[in-house]
Amino acid sequence: MNVDRSSLKTGSSVRQACRTGKFTGQTSGLASGFAQANLVILRERDASDFLQFCQKNPKPCPLLEVTKAGDFCPAKLATDSDLRTDLPRYRVWKQGTLIEEPTDISHLWRDDLVSFLIGCSFTFEAALIEAGLPVRHIDLGLNVPMYRTSLNCEPAGIFSGPLVVSMRPFKPADAIRAVQITSRFPAVHGAPVHMGFPEQLGITNLAQPDFGEAVPVEPGELPLFWACGVTPQAVLMQAKLDFAITHSPGCMFVSDLKDEALAIS
Amino acid sequence: MNVDRSSLKTGSSVRQACRTGKFTGQTSGLASGFAQANLVILRERDASDFLQFCQKNPKPCPLLEVTKAGDFCPAKLATDSDLRTDLPRYRVWKQGTLIEEPTDISHLWRDDLVSFLIGCSFTFEAALIEAGLPVRHIDLGLNVPMYRTSLNCEPAGIFSGPLVVSMRPFKPADAIRAVQITSRFPAVHGAPVHMGFPEQLGITNLAQPDFGEAVPVEPGELPLFWACGVTPQAVLMQAKLDFAITHSPGCMFVSDLKDEALAIS
Repeated sequence: MNVDRSSLKTGSSVRQACRTGKFTGQTSGLASGFAQANLVILRERDASDFLQFCQKNPKPCPLLEVTKAGDFCPAKLATDSDLRTDLPRYRVWKQGTLIEEPTDISHLWRDDLVSFLIGCSFTFEAALIEAGLPVRHIDLGLNVPMYRTSLNCEPAGIFSGPLVVSMRPFKPADAIRAVQITSRFPAVHGAPVHMGFPEQLGITNLAQPDFGEAVPVEPGELPLFWACGVTPQAVLMQAKLDFAITHSPGCMFVSDLKDEALAIS
Repeated sequence: MNVDRSSLKTGSSVRQACRTGKFTGQTSGLASGFAQANLVILRERDASDFLQFCQKNPKPCPLLEVTKAGDFCPAKLATDSDLRTDLPRYRVWKQGTLIEEPTDISHLWRDDLVSFLIGCSFTFEAALIEAGLPVRHIDLGLNVPMYRTSLNCEPAGIFSGPLVVSMRPFKPADAIRAVQITSRFPAVHGAPVHMGFPEQLGITNLAQPDFGEAVPVEPGELPLFWACGVTPQAVLMQAKLDFAITHSPGCMFVSDLKDEALAIS
């Protein structure tokens, strides 16, 4: 039996509801003000390359925390958390293929697993909304549109692939504010990587995103493009690892950290 | 006899050369690293309205210092300075008409004159160049192109008029950096007021600026528009004051303040 979403006001309450099987849905809009994170779990032998990949590509892969092998508690993000149970839903990958979407991964846990918690754009979207800027896909109740670009990430070991970006359109004055606001949050993708000319990113049709859902860009608006947390998932799939676990799309780890704690100024 | 420009490495040396009549030229590129300022001198009876105008329009009119009536030394900007002699060249206005361009205004000084020192874009241009961004008009050896817009400043008393903007074109990634860098400098116009769509500002032809000189905007570049220090001069002319003094275009007050001291972070 699912819990009432409106009762999930803190990171702790979301994690508790997940852990007890009472919540298995998407976390967008839950625990307002608390930072959410993307999750990637790899075997220790793959983790070193992936750590290097994240450090070479901080805009798509801003690391909030990396656990020691076997440790399932990212203590900086939430001291009492358990990554095996505290997300609503996971994806289990073998040889780059999705094989299972469980709500608990305790049965898969091993002492050689390393967990990567990666910043999520929900944090900067909250700051944009707080500043009074309209965020199109949220206003329309859609998932943000995301696009594979013709820009390649810096490769590291077995990991390589294209940069994936998310797109949000703004009027020019709001676009300037959006650059300023998101620049304060390098831990959650930071400033846009591009604005204005999708073709410069190899994007031929904004109406056909590779992930998420299309949103209209009105005349007189600029499309702004941010590095996206889907990049590491695309890179993982391409690497065809024997074994990996990620969060299920939209089903993030909700931390005890306040969004504003991730601002640099 | 004019002094060698390359010897004018500090605000103090520029002011000394002006005071002794050895320098009467434009100050762009002089005393690298020292903040320069626009100058407006008004009679005390007009000064209160103008102060309000500046405070209502901080982007075109960022006030660095306002002197007391009769005081010709803006001590926060340069303790030993004398506004009657320390600029290369001045403009004297009567009933909104330019009547004289002297290199010294000692003969015009009165005890009821109030001086306004207003931030100048040279400071943020130095920061853009320091960050490796190409500034088109500087690279081409031209004056920055400036345009009257269809946006009105907030009026105050006798002062009103259109916002004047300067334009600098950038590639998208550089445009994002330019927003970030100039946001650090609210005391010198700060972040752009617009980017991308000149027609939204009532600008019909970028090739025909109202002041300065046109520069090309290449395909794939965004035109960025900043509030401009020419705005107060346009507003002064429109107010047709009995008496006003300003700096002559490009002949700024060079302060002892370092550019970086005007950054907020």
